Amino acid sequence: MTEDLLKPYVIGLDLGGTNSVFGIVDSRGEIKATTAIKTQGYGNNVQAYVDAAVEALQIIIDQVGGISKIKAMGIGAPNGNYYNGTIEFAPNLEWGRDGVVPLAKLFSDKLGIPVALTNDANAAAIGEMTYGVARGMKNFIVITLGTGVGSGIVVNGQLVYGCDGFAGELGHVIVKENGRDCGCGRKGCLETYCSATGVARSAREFLANSDEPSLLRELDPEKITSYDVSMAAAKGDKIALDIYEFTGRLLGESCANFAAFSSPEAFIFFGGLTKAGALIMDPIKKAYDENVLNIFKGKAKFLVSALEGSSAAVLGASAVGWDIQK
Amino acid sequence: MTEDLLKPYVIGLDLGGTNSVFGIVDSRGEIKATTAIKTQGYGNNVQAYVDAAVEALQIIIDQVGGISKIKAMGIGAPNGNYYNGTIEFAPNLEWGRDGVVPLAKLFSDKLGIPVALTNDANAAAIGEMTYGVARGMKNFIVITLGTGVGSGIVVNGQLVYGCDGFAGELGHVIVKENGRDCGCGRKGCLETYCSATGVARSAREFLANSDEPSLLRELDPEKITSYDVSMAAAKGDKIALDIYEFTGRLLGESCANFAAFSSPEAFIFFGGLTKAGALIMDPIKKAYDENVLNIFKGKAKFLVSALEGSSAAVLGASAVGWDIQK
Repeated sequence: MTEDLLKPYVIGLDLGGTNSVFGIVDSRGEIKATTAIKTQGYGNNVQAYVDAAVEALQIIIDQVGGISKIKAMGIGAPNGNYYNGTIEFAPNLEWGRDGVVPLAKLFSDKLGIPVALTNDANAAAIGEMTYGVARGMKNFIVITLGTGVGSGIVVNGQLVYGCDGFAGELGHVIVKENGRDCGCGRKGCLETYCSATGVARSAREFLANSDEPSLLRELDPEKITSYDVSMAAAKGDKIALDIYEFTGRLLGESCANFAAFSSPEAFIFFGGLTKAGALIMDPIKKAYDENVLNIFKGKAKFLVSALEGSSAAVLGASAVGWDIQK
Repeated sequence: MTEDLLKPYVIGLDLGGTNSVFGIVDSRGEIKATTAIKTQGYGNNVQAYVDAAVEALQIIIDQVGGISKIKAMGIGAPNGNYYNGTIEFAPNLEWGRDGVVPLAKLFSDKLGIPVALTNDANAAAIGEMTYGVARGMKNFIVITLGTGVGSGIVVNGQLVYGCDGFAGELGHVIVKENGRDCGCGRKGCLETYCSATGVARSAREFLANSDEPSLLRELDPEKITSYDVSMAAAKGDKIALDIYEFTGRLLGESCANFAAFSSPEAFIFFGGLTKAGALIMDPIKKAYDENVLNIFKGKAKFLVSALEGSSAAVLGASAVGWDIQK
């Protein structure tokens, strides 16, 4: 057994637009220590961000016995490029907005351990494969339903990164010809319908296009959130239930097309919208069965992430750290 | 060097609904000997088909120095399942229509060499990677434009077979909501528009929906083929050119969605429709550029197979034979 195999931990960093959350994680997915810093406040000085991060990290590294116990670090970050260890033109990061930031190298130089970086949805997929419901699976797709819609695709047991490190952008598959305007500059992307913000847009549309009474009419339409829709649906509100039906159907129809690509063993959903449970999962499964090619019928499982909760993203990121050792 | 590496040939079998074409191929993709038999005429007796095939094969095997020179056999066949070496419910094969036929095992038992089998579009993709324009590529998509539309997807240098061996059915991605009826029982599949038969359907639609003069009006609408459309387009016929524009645009828009999945280095087109050259390739590229997500723009090449011609399918199948040795 080499010395390396005796190192029992990896560091996971869930790098979000607001907070950067760090965890030191063992091979079974137990978080041994955790800390956080603000992601912003360093202007465009990424080195200052890394210095502040490592200062905070050092405290929890010492708690677990020092850097000699740490095998690697994994980072899940917006616009993360796995091949280059870079964050590229990330609109929500003040130090990552205008170019290509070699974040993996900056952390690796400072800590003296290997560091890998990928986007948040890919980290979620590796997390599911390492600690979650995808253990033992070789072909599956994770779809993250958050502010946007992201995805991490695994084929033959490997993350699909494509020729440039950016594969797996299923939130930007166009599902409606001349559909809703998307932040990416195009129209009709899956994300414009099936993200949390998409659900809120649906609510405004559904309310405007019908006279049906609804609890949602008591709210300022411009301020309705997907959480409001879920609360109304839980009370049996017809329009809120119709919105989930609509959202789930679109997801199910989209998954039927994704099956023609990689015929996955499972679709795994991750993020806030999955809290609606059967309200969203039932129409997904129904629309999938109605739309998928015959040869794929009944083969794919529809699962909700087992890593839900605030630690999920850290676990996913840490799994990227284990992964670079393979 | 093991004895195995001294065996310089593989057998390729292009198994079509009408003919079964065999080639003995060296590692550079040169066909050393070739033969063929009819695929039908054996009723549901697949063993009789295999016996007839091996009888014909034996002659060309002897020509190259006997079975000891042959490393393996690869088969490209409709509804071929790579994982199991089976042909499953293939509607156009009288001995393969009603169940699961273990064709790889039947040939392997009879010839005493390893035999692998996959569907024809996957064989084309392995052929491009082994002998064709995809040599050295790790991420690409082959789209076959024949009677139907097939696809072979390569990710991380490996064919995407999915959980069941049937991944890569991009001809059955739904591209138009409530679109044309497809043989698969659903509506709006890519294949209903962009196959040779799809192009003929477009011709009938375009002629019915316009008063534009056209050379195609001289033909019986029910008998128009994609070849007629290509002949008319070559003469500058407006409706024929519009049909290519329409077909190419749909392919380009579809490829833009496929890029979000696996971000390939190249899309490689294979089959009869590619003979139209720029008439089909230009609208594909234009629609792709207009529709693909910004981060993918300008990255993918659009190529036409270098394996065109009657030997392409045999070469593709033979490449599957090399592949099982890895």
